[in-house]
Amino acid sequence: MVEVGVVGGTGYTGIELLRILVTHPHINIKTITSRTDAGVCVSDIYPSLRGFLALDFVEPDVDVLAECDVVFFATPNGVAMQMVPALLESGVRIIDISADFRIRDASLWSAWYGLEHVCPDVITQAVYGLPEFNRDNIASARLVACPGCYPTAVQLGFMPLLANDLIEPDYLIANTASGVSGAGRGASLRTSYCEVSDSYKAYAVAGHRHHPEISQGLGDMSARQVRLTFVPHLVPMIRGIHATLYAKLSDLSCDVQAVFEKHYADEPFVDVMSASECPETRSVKNSNFCRLGIGRPQNDNTIVILSVIDNLVKGASGQAVQNMNIMFGFDEMTGLNTVPLMP
Amino acid sequence: MVEVGVVGGTGYTGIELLRILVTHPHINIKTITSRTDAGVCVSDIYPSLRGFLALDFVEPDVDVLAECDVVFFATPNGVAMQMVPALLESGVRIIDISADFRIRDASLWSAWYGLEHVCPDVITQAVYGLPEFNRDNIASARLVACPGCYPTAVQLGFMPLLANDLIEPDYLIANTASGVSGAGRGASLRTSYCEVSDSYKAYAVAGHRHHPEISQGLGDMSARQVRLTFVPHLVPMIRGIHATLYAKLSDLSCDVQAVFEKHYADEPFVDVMSASECPETRSVKNSNFCRLGIGRPQNDNTIVILSVIDNLVKGASGQAVQNMNIMFGFDEMTGLNTVPLMP
Amino acid sequence: MVEVGVVGGTGYTGIELLRILVTHPHINIKTITSRTDAGVCVSDIYPSLRGFLALDFVEPDVDVLAECDVVFFATPNGVAMQMVPALLESGVRIIDISADFRIRDASLWSAWYGLEHVCPDVITQAVYGLPEFNRDNIASARLVACPGCYPTAVQLGFMPLLANDLIEPDYLIANTASGVSGAGRGASLRTSYCEVSDSYKAYAVAGHRHHPEISQGLGDMSARQVRLTFVPHLVPMIRGIHATLYAKLSDLSCDVQAVFEKHYADEPFVDVMSASECPETRSVKNSNFCRLGIGRPQNDNTIVILSVIDNLVKGASGQAVQNMNIMFGFDEMTGLNTVPLMP
Amino acid sequence: MVEVGVVGGTGYTGIELLRILVTHPHINIKTITSRTDAGVCVSDIYPSLRGFLALDFVEPDVDVLAECDVVFFATPNGVAMQMVPALLESGVRIIDISADFRIRDASLWSAWYGLEHVCPDVITQAVYGLPEFNRDNIASARLVACPGCYPTAVQLGFMPLLANDLIEPDYLIANTASGVSGAGRGASLRTSYCEVSDSYKAYAVAGHRHHPEISQGLGDMSARQVRLTFVPHLVPMIRGIHATLYAKLSDLSCDVQAVFEKHYADEPFVDVMSASECPETRSVKNSNFCRLGIGRPQNDNTIVILSVIDNLVKGASGQAVQNMNIMFGFDEMTGLNTVPLMP
Repeated sequence: MVEVGVVGGTGYTGIELLRILVTHPHINIKTITSRTDAGVCVSDIYPSLRGFLALDFVEPDVDVLAECDVVFFATPNGVAMQMVPALLESGVRIIDISADFRIRDASLWSAWYGLEHVCPDVITQAVYGLPEFNRDNIASARLVACPGCYPTAVQLGFMPLLANDLIEPDYLIANTASGVSGAGRGASLRTSYCEVSDSYKAYAVAGHRHHPEISQGLGDMSARQVRLTFVPHLVPMIRGIHATLYAKLSDLSCDVQAVFEKHYADEPFVDVMSASECPETRSVKNSNFCRLGIGRPQNDNTIVILSVIDNLVKGASGQAVQNMNIMFGFDEMTGLNTVPLMP
Repeated sequence: MVEVGVVGGTGYTGIELLRILVTHPHINIKTITSRTDAGVCVSDIYPSLRGFLALDFVEPDVDVLAECDVVFFATPNGVAMQMVPALLESGVRIIDISADFRIRDASLWSAWYGLEHVCPDVITQAVYGLPEFNRDNIASARLVACPGCYPTAVQLGFMPLLANDLIEPDYLIANTASGVSGAGRGASLRTSYCEVSDSYKAYAVAGHRHHPEISQGLGDMSARQVRLTFVPHLVPMIRGIHATLYAKLSDLSCDVQAVFEKHYADEPFVDVMSASECPETRSVKNSNFCRLGIGRPQNDNTIVILSVIDNLVKGASGQAVQNMNIMFGFDEMTGLNTVPLMP
Repeated sequence: MVEVGVVGGTGYTGIELLRILVTHPHINIKTITSRTDAGVCVSDIYPSLRGFLALDFVEPDVDVLAECDVVFFATPNGVAMQMVPALLESGVRIIDISADFRIRDASLWSAWYGLEHVCPDVITQAVYGLPEFNRDNIASARLVACPGCYPTAVQLGFMPLLANDLIEPDYLIANTASGVSGAGRGASLRTSYCEVSDSYKAYAVAGHRHHPEISQGLGDMSARQVRLTFVPHLVPMIRGIHATLYAKLSDLSCDVQAVFEKHYADEPFVDVMSASECPETRSVKNSNFCRLGIGRPQNDNTIVILSVIDNLVKGASGQAVQNMNIMFGFDEMTGLNTVPLMP
Repeated sequence: MVEVGVVGGTGYTGIELLRILVTHPHINIKTITSRTDAGVCVSDIYPSLRGFLALDFVEPDVDVLAECDVVFFATPNGVAMQMVPALLESGVRIIDISADFRIRDASLWSAWYGLEHVCPDVITQAVYGLPEFNRDNIASARLVACPGCYPTAVQLGFMPLLANDLIEPDYLIANTASGVSGAGRGASLRTSYCEVSDSYKAYAVAGHRHHPEISQGLGDMSARQVRLTFVPHLVPMIRGIHATLYAKLSDLSCDVQAVFEKHYADEPFVDVMSASECPETRSVKNSNFCRLGIGRPQNDNTIVILSVIDNLVKGASGQAVQNMNIMFGFDEMTGLNTVPLMP
């Protein structure tokens, strides 16, 4: 059994990680930390875990965490970087669901996250945890930086187009929409029921911190310079990311549907829908799947890719477990083979 | 008092029209027709109207309607064109909320609406009822074709850019989202609560019938050829249209915010938000306003316009009443001066 | 014109009060206070008011408020009692939407609200602002204590039964449900979208602070001792209170429907539905109506009354304006004659 | 492997049954029938099952079904009774999720369901499939009639009180609320998004077909005559049943909390919350649990029991699989050991 530690168990990515891990057959949850709720039984805060988990939250302690084989960080940005160097030295493998090690350029990271990075040298050891792009590197990684929710959906949508050089990379548009859980579990007027339900809006149009992460990722996939416009929106739903991607086709004769089907033929968690079908976010709710739809309005030169994930699963904790499965040689679907919830 | 007839009062645009008209000080509702509910009291179907309206639905009858000064059609597509020629001959003025007279090219209309047009010659008499573009023609019109909901939001967003030749018109993208009431009031699995709530999706990516209407309208606003990609999405909310519009700026030094503020300075129902603010759909719920926000991601060459309306008001029945006010010389805000509902 | 002051304009009852007042023809809003947002333009916080109100929030100041004819308190509990004595002395009439003057027994009030009452002597001057029970007293009142949202719905439902002595008053059950706006506008995990939507729960089963208020009110309506069980629930909707009231009929031959229709025949804001019809909360959304339905399951000895209101209108700010209309001799529907929003 | 047939796979109970069965380790799905969708791949209608199930819907055929070990009916009421007699003769065991065999009195059944019962003699063979009350009989049953959703929640809530004779059984009140999926998957204006969301209402106050089923069940649990008032409500949420149960305590000194904890100590799917905690419907979403909360308002003589289930799981298809596990000697939690989805 792999001994697992979870740092930061009270947020939505933390509880989702626990929900997945408690039924994973090859691991044991050794410790769950929470500064704010230390001493409280996990299932007192999350009644949905009653009967599945008898642990209490404890204060984070590097010595206890050092006894784990792998430690997940489901913490606010800026926490993991404080503890990761010591844990790496202890030989613990790290899966960071937060943003601390996603961006290679530490000064760019600082500009967007408003913090000085305390271990820029460690960033270079981090492997970007998008299995569909980086599986081999993940297998041997000591430190995996899991992609953000928007970046996962957008990169999986653009990847076959960029990898096969089918589009003009200098005018990409990612119009994205997220459920409210993407904003985390804090008490906030911005995410309160009466402010969010029965409404829809764009936000962060001038710039969003996922923009540099996506640009870096798309750049890695393309031989040419990438230029991206990224506009996120807030949808009155709990879970789900939907990306509507627009690009100009370089070659109008290309069979994009076939390219996608071939590109993802062996991927356990990427599902290319039939031609002209539009994936709904609910079709992946409670699952680690990304579903993709391909459209070409008026059969013109603009290709439209639709990409949906559950932001808490493939966009966060499920992908983190997928990465763990790869790192420890388990079947990649272990613990993640759940049927989406419908309706 | 202007005598008003309403054909097709049981759908959502019909009930919304009644909701606005019952408090309008200068009109009298003479007759409300419904084939399916003839003989039923309007407020038995719509308890919200109890105490405001004592009429029963009646079978549509051209002779009765001919006694009105103005007749609104809040009917499914294909109904208005059957009755409009006779009514016009009787001297009645017509405000059609359906799509029958929006598109000048009758064969293009037929291709999208799946019906032969029965009076293509009458289309030429129709004035497209977007007051911000067409106010003078509306004032003297015998037949006004009210714009669709998506077309209203998209055209008001692009208009200042096209009219001032600020963007490349051959690569416009309109990524739009609608509340569920946009699909009408029929019983349908597609719009049932369990199929729609807590989810988000694109639809009609290959082509949507509002595409030719928008293209025609944008073409009228631009000196150059317009080429539009239009992708609609369905949001789990009752009312609201949100358009996120993307275009390449021709002139990077242009102050787009100032252009918009100047363009709409005298419009009673168009509100340009402060720079970098994003309008929410709920900020116009229950009102005839269109609110616009202007953004420029990464200060790059792509301009993003956000446009929100209430699809049943400015996107349908409110704009219809606005047109009536213009046609009969009333103050344009009469009956429409309501504060949006918040929260 | 009546000069109006509003203390505490940033909460949901405050903004709703403003929404109603800005279209009221006989009043002028002189001042709006907010400690937290003093100096900010009201419509910057509430874009829905753009174009309707040009005032800034100011610090509350008794001298400024003393120049008003009437001052509304839309404040958290415990604020009004600090300022009311001085304002009453200045001759200002007060309409308190908070709970400070609703309960005649100051020690009972303290037990439920966790505060010492600072002016228990003033409580005796307060008139309980339920127009359907207390209209004459309201007309001459200097200080009106507006009922809570649950108390309004429950009392209007039980009143005809108690006033006519038709039920056993010692075993009343009020099973109630509220939309989320009833919890106010503060940032709170308890009312965040992801915690509230797609779920339903009871709360405060052991006791809720509206229990003593309702018991006092029902006691005033009944010649006999009243004993009430009250269980509130939280519904994933923005606005609306629904009360399902159960009581044992004393006289099985009584025509309860007729009693209700007669009792409320002259009330402008109480609508008794036809026999066996169930009112929906949305049928009163955005309006000051209370709709009542009467049922008798299995035609047995239990009578069931259904009562719905919009918690922010008839349950708070609309009823406050109704009280103002009564106090100043305006037609009672002035400013409140809005059609409910549907859908 | 147990060979399983599913009759009526396209409704919500059908798809939910499939969702559970595809991961059940001891069974094989042999056939899935649907008259309306015969020939269509199951996952074309339900994309959430893509990758989990490769079967097509077929026309129902008794000969094919007769080769199964067990057949589930997830059909509209009135269908199962047509096929069950022949299947029973073939030796197939039946689990009926519909209402055809729930009520022992065939004429009472007919009165509520509006159909003549075609095999009243078979009803006597049916075992009512509430495991917590009837486990031993279920183990040996040939035909199990699964309880309805409301009846499951209400009976589990009242059972410990009635079995221990703690309340007056002649004045029971069950105030219940259901998510919209309880109304099934048909296209209907009554369950359309715009009619249901952002609202709340009671329905069927005069009488609901679950009333006789619950009365029969509660009668079986009690030594005395039971008299029940039952009022259902519709909540804008997808899944969930919430029952708020009221009864008069016979013995005020009784420790009801302890009685419940003892009564359900060994039940794998019934969870008694700590004293004064209120279970939310979401705390059982996607799971077969029933969570119960116990309250006593004002410490008076009325006991309030709160009971929540997922209507599609414990209220339908999950309980059906629980019954199958009991009938075939599997561990009762097999295939049902899922963590509720949160948030």
